[in-house]
Amino acid sequence: MGKYVFGVDIGGTTVKIGLLTTAGEMVDKWEIVTRKEDKGANILPDVAASIEAKLKERSIDKSEVEGIGIGVPGPVTADGIVLRAVNLGWGRLNIAEKMEELTGIKSNGGNDANVAALGEMWKGGGMGFNSIVMVTLGTGVGGGIIIDGKILTGARGAGGEIGHIHVKDGETRTCGCGNHGCFEQYASATGLSFLASEQFKAWKGNTCLTGNDLSAKAVFDGVKAGDELCKNIAKEYGDYLGKGLAVITSTIDPEAIVIGGGVSKAGQILIDYLKPAFNETVFGDCRDVEIKLATLGNDAGMYGAAKLVL
Amino acid sequence: MGKYVFGVDIGGTTVKIGLLTTAGEMVDKWEIVTRKEDKGANILPDVAASIEAKLKERSIDKSEVEGIGIGVPGPVTADGIVLRAVNLGWGRLNIAEKMEELTGIKSNGGNDANVAALGEMWKGGGMGFNSIVMVTLGTGVGGGIIIDGKILTGARGAGGEIGHIHVKDGETRTCGCGNHGCFEQYASATGLSFLASEQFKAWKGNTCLTGNDLSAKAVFDGVKAGDELCKNIAKEYGDYLGKGLAVITSTIDPEAIVIGGGVSKAGQILIDYLKPAFNETVFGDCRDVEIKLATLGNDAGMYGAAKLVL
Repeated sequence: MGKYVFGVDIGGTTVKIGLLTTAGEMVDKWEIVTRKEDKGANILPDVAASIEAKLKERSIDKSEVEGIGIGVPGPVTADGIVLRAVNLGWGRLNIAEKMEELTGIKSNGGNDANVAALGEMWKGGGMGFNSIVMVTLGTGVGGGIIIDGKILTGARGAGGEIGHIHVKDGETRTCGCGNHGCFEQYASATGLSFLASEQFKAWKGNTCLTGNDLSAKAVFDGVKAGDELCKNIAKEYGDYLGKGLAVITSTIDPEAIVIGGGVSKAGQILIDYLKPAFNETVFGDCRDVEIKLATLGNDAGMYGAAKLVL
Repeated sequence: MGKYVFGVDIGGTTVKIGLLTTAGEMVDKWEIVTRKEDKGANILPDVAASIEAKLKERSIDKSEVEGIGIGVPGPVTADGIVLRAVNLGWGRLNIAEKMEELTGIKSNGGNDANVAALGEMWKGGGMGFNSIVMVTLGTGVGGGIIIDGKILTGARGAGGEIGHIHVKDGETRTCGCGNHGCFEQYASATGLSFLASEQFKAWKGNTCLTGNDLSAKAVFDGVKAGDELCKNIAKEYGDYLGKGLAVITSTIDPEAIVIGGGVSKAGQILIDYLKPAFNETVFGDCRDVEIKLATLGNDAGMYGAAKLVL
């Protein structure tokens, strides 16, 4: 096996590139701009050029490189074919083949949320486990499912799209996916702020919250300071999060759940708030699933992309 | 590869045993009584003796037998260790090892619902697919998930326990699993009868239903005859079923869903009634998943158990 591997995480604004050892040590990491013009035609050549420059800078021969793994914001098949990546301007693209053509190095691709899950299992909050569900609580809810060390890609690259499981009837707001009542409408950072604003409007007592900042951070800081309204909001949020995670857990029966994204910065208190609803609704045999916080932050995608080719 | 394989489906009353070719042709099938006394200590020896007798009867040498696969009503690990099977009186039992000891033939075991899913994919409604979700609508709701041809066993043998995903808050009735608001409380044959009885009590118009028979068959026969109450019940039932299946589909992204069990005898009309809620709530990319009816009936477990060792 070669000594090095590249993990590439393509986002709508920047591309994160990591040079890692095949043992999973991050040797170097940097970012380049995502050039989305011309339907994103420059993105892969830019990444290839950046990798070539890094190899030269560090005097690494290509024979020492095991592969290039790439995370993409869109559905990707198990063979590394991107079905589309709207944010990058891409339609169908065989990213594995294309990157191999550009660099002469074996390549593979995966959906960014799935790849992040793989990264957290390899070197983050899911370390030591072989089957995990990773949920990323950010602007939306991203999901990735790893079973026996392998990404559950799904028949259409949509495996692990747990942000869009239906959890509530009668919702009038439309989700980004076009449906109504999706998990991410309540369990994302955005969803938390929505729940907070509803409770804030109806609240008559004292509170440290102001209408200007109903972020996840403000709410959980309030919880830690003993604010009653914040505790009520966290309770409602934890109910949604716990019940949604219980559904996934009863279906998949993973060894562990790993929670990442902005909301997870609240720490253990987030787990404390989701646990009651989780325990009340999860299939009994699964009640002892480990619930962990992600530890790799924005690097998870690079780690996971690298792991994809090992 | 040997020419034959045995598929064994252990139930609480009878054990179904099938002799199949390794190509999946059922050569012979029969049943023996499940002797549950002495904590089910006789069950495996009885199966072994029955298999030995069949080999003798048909003059088949053991060298021609590829293996013995066994479906068990309880959680089973990927290595063929039963964690418990309450209905058989069993605690933890390495069923693969035990059956090999008894017969000298390579053996393996799996959960009965998972094994049935494997059978339907091999030779039934899921034929031609490689990743399916099978749901069995009977007294309860059984589930089995097959990904890339392999059972999703789960970390505790609870993979595919989709009957116990939480779908409704505020339910006062307790599910068999101890929770409240599980999918099977609405989507099983029992659940359908419950929904029917609620609507029947409140119905003021004419109907072909009588309070004595609110079975799935009576309801769907009524639908086919144009009965308004039956159509309302089927609509409510289809909403529950469609939404639950959509949750699983958005998570797993299978190629196909296969529906079996007593309720599935209603036929295509069942799919027609679940489709609206399914399409409304499933993640968009997955909307074209194939929804099929199971075709193997009570033989699915034997087929799947056989496939387990191939």
